[in-house]
Amino acid sequence: MALTHDQKTNNALVHQQDREFVFHSWSVQGALNPLVIQSGQGCVLWDYDGKEYLDFSSQLVNTNIGHQHPKVVAAIKAQADELTTIAPSTANHMRNQAAQRIVALAPAGFSKVFFTNAGADANENAIRMARLYTGRDKVLSSYRSYHGNTGAAIVATGDARRVPNEYARGHVHFFSPYLYRSEFWAADEAQECARALHHLRRVIESEGPDGIAAILLESVPGTAGIMVPPPGYMQGVRALCDEFGIIMIMDEVMSGFGRTGKWFALEHYDVVPDLITFAKGVNSGYVPAGGVIISTALSDYFNDKMFPGGLTYSGHPLAMASIVATIDAMKEEGMVEHAAQMGELLGAGLRALADKHALIGEVRGMGVFWALELVANRASRAKLPAAAMNTIKAACMARGLLPFIADNRIHVVPPCNVSAEEVARALAIYDDVLAKVAVEYTE
Amino acid sequence: MALTHDQKTNNALVHQQDREFVFHSWSVQGALNPLVIQSGQGCVLWDYDGKEYLDFSSQLVNTNIGHQHPKVVAAIKAQADELTTIAPSTANHMRNQAAQRIVALAPAGFSKVFFTNAGADANENAIRMARLYTGRDKVLSSYRSYHGNTGAAIVATGDARRVPNEYARGHVHFFSPYLYRSEFWAADEAQECARALHHLRRVIESEGPDGIAAILLESVPGTAGIMVPPPGYMQGVRALCDEFGIIMIMDEVMSGFGRTGKWFALEHYDVVPDLITFAKGVNSGYVPAGGVIISTALSDYFNDKMFPGGLTYSGHPLAMASIVATIDAMKEEGMVEHAAQMGELLGAGLRALADKHALIGEVRGMGVFWALELVANRASRAKLPAAAMNTIKAACMARGLLPFIADNRIHVVPPCNVSAEEVARALAIYDDVLAKVAVEYTE
Ligand SMILES: Cc1ncc(COP(=O)(O)O)c(C=O)c1O
Ligand SMILES: Cc1ncc(COP(=O)(O)O)c(C=O)c1O
Repeated sequence: MALTHDQKTNNALVHQQDREFVFHSWSVQGALNPLVIQSGQGCVLWDYDGKEYLDFSSQLVNTNIGHQHPKVVAAIKAQADELTTIAPSTANHMRNQAAQRIVALAPAGFSKVFFTNAGADANENAIRMARLYTGRDKVLSSYRSYHGNTGAAIVATGDARRVPNEYARGHVHFFSPYLYRSEFWAADEAQECARALHHLRRVIESEGPDGIAAILLESVPGTAGIMVPPPGYMQGVRALCDEFGIIMIMDEVMSGFGRTGKWFALEHYDVVPDLITFAKGVNSGYVPAGGVIISTALSDYFNDKMFPGGLTYSGHPLAMASIVATIDAMKEEGMVEHAAQMGELLGAGLRALADKHALIGEVRGMGVFWALELVANRASRAKLPAAAMNTIKAACMARGLLPFIADNRIHVVPPCNVSAEEVARALAIYDDVLAKVAVEYTE
Repeated sequence: MALTHDQKTNNALVHQQDREFVFHSWSVQGALNPLVIQSGQGCVLWDYDGKEYLDFSSQLVNTNIGHQHPKVVAAIKAQADELTTIAPSTANHMRNQAAQRIVALAPAGFSKVFFTNAGADANENAIRMARLYTGRDKVLSSYRSYHGNTGAAIVATGDARRVPNEYARGHVHFFSPYLYRSEFWAADEAQECARALHHLRRVIESEGPDGIAAILLESVPGTAGIMVPPPGYMQGVRALCDEFGIIMIMDEVMSGFGRTGKWFALEHYDVVPDLITFAKGVNSGYVPAGGVIISTALSDYFNDKMFPGGLTYSGHPLAMASIVATIDAMKEEGMVEHAAQMGELLGAGLRALADKHALIGEVRGMGVFWALELVANRASRAKLPAAAMNTIKAACMARGLLPFIADNRIHVVPPCNVSAEEVARALAIYDDVLAKVAVEYTE
């Protein structure tokens, strides 16, 4: 059915054409029933029938500034009028502006930015830099991680999506801290931390420290379940990297740009890595963009050596304009501080839900980055089954809330500029939904 | 030096800030002297001093529709007002429109599009599909190829940039036809074709056909030197794929969307691959985008099987709107047919230059996709040295032409909507520059 560009459309038609022409990420194509969205504003999305959804997913946890922020939209339009695209080999004003702002947000000791299109290729290039700088091959990362879908990024990824994609060599995985389902028989956070660091040291020693280029880890593991590392863990990893000459790469793709109530999650730990990767929140994904923030030592290393990596759209002007406007708007509107405040509300509210609902095994997070781990049984910690999670998803949607569901968890991840009223509304919906589901699924 | 978003700037400042904050692709960072560009229109770019350049590079051979095409700029602005970004799991009107148009341009037998951010991840996902569909591992590609910078794409790449990046397994390389520097001691095109196919068969047999998932090759190898395959070669590759159950992936990232005077270069060969990858010309890079066009057999395979690949910005609305507008504008303006016509002018003009300048060893190409292979000596075919190529680049720039220089070649790759007058102007500049350089560098 041929549609012209401006022909009016509707939910049914968009759904039908999607199923006809579009191949989806991470899916069994025959089992898809995609949600139709027409547009949005702030924390709200709507479809062609005007049905509204409160977006507590931030899509793929990327719209930190909310939907259709007017300043970012205006900046994209202005840049579209000036210059949409230019080769990375040129010098571009907006690219400089974006790089300068990002470097200014990073800890001291960082000097340049290499821009990419997204998170996966940010990690690809950080890994490349670490390997070239150290002259070593191996890359260590956590089993509980997601780092992207391209060759090296998907094998650096620890979760099950790695398994059908293991075509890159040199990747080794370790267990990072997760007290609720400890791999180390730990009784408390301090023990989990000490044992996780001991485990990491043993993996390093066993793999041979002289062959390890990098340890890559999310500042807060996101997709894997929003596990804020226990106090001391990141410092311990930094110390191991220093001891063995390993490059520390912190993946801030999901945790960066306000998500945790700081510009970067690493600020919570007082740890400075060698490379920081970013995407998502840097411009809320309004234009595809990502990159690597490079410490001076690594950046200087390539002053007289060829960097053998690149891409057609590195430092793309339209993406750069959206980064500049996003960072400026987030600053002007105090959005990162606001996210920290909303974190207080969310934390308190979610803990109150846990007091009420036995389904909630654990509440974890900070800022606008929270997980509810749902269990069929609090004692055994048995995960709530997939059928129940599907029921929860459908029940949230029916109540006008777009949730983020992963495995047996609800990730509570609204934009940084979510309002207190919207938080209250969402908490009420989760409350209602959990009560309904509890009747059916508690053991 | 802190600049605000709208502060006026100038060439010197943009250059200086670039060197301070921006890490560049494929470069020795200390050796960079990037060109400053403010804006452009059609085939023309200018800097902050108003100095103009005729863009015969199309940047990285991506601005097929020229700079700042008003219809595409308008579509980006309209979409920015409606919805910049949405998760790939949703159904989106503009994504359907883009997918439908792309499928309609592909040969019969293709049914869906998987969208990515660029060319590298298009190839990553095509390789993934081929491996899953066949249950085999190995991927064959040409030594004379470029397929992108991420884990698998860079190792599929044949050129020297692969070597410091060989961290993906399962990649095997073969020699594709290149009569001017034949690997097969061939005397003419027919012999080059037959021997190249024999060589490919021997590589397949020697690697073990039952382990080969895919043959990935550019429909016209681009970065490697714009070597239009001899008649029969692509058909021969297709026949080998059929004989051994191998998936044929044609990389149309650079050759697609009008570059060769057809929508896809594969139309020149009457060959239908199993997967087609695209990026660049699909929207001239106005917003980062790429993808895989999937034949019905492969698409259907994933109807009841999980596809383990994905990315945050798959089917990004802003990118989709720019694709729709680009394809529509190219159709409305007959731009692909125009590119074919300009190909006649360019071919004749470049061959006339070859008659005059002994520096030109060979003229190859079609449409707006040509290479001049420059030699110090026509008999030995010794490549013109790098110093001479640098002189040529500088001399072109001084005359207001932005050339595309690769190794010992000038790639003559203007937008599809270049005018006959601009072609004439560029030919005169190449003529003048080659005459000047010849004095110094001919043996
Ligand atoms: C921590 C982290 N790193 C990398 C990525 C990959 O980003 P992209 O999908 O933009 O390639 C993601 C995406 O979810 C992520 O959460
Ligand atoms: C044939 C071909 N494939 C893939 C790519 C990679 O595209 P990207 O740089 O957008 O990742 C290129 C880029 O030049 C290319 O020419």
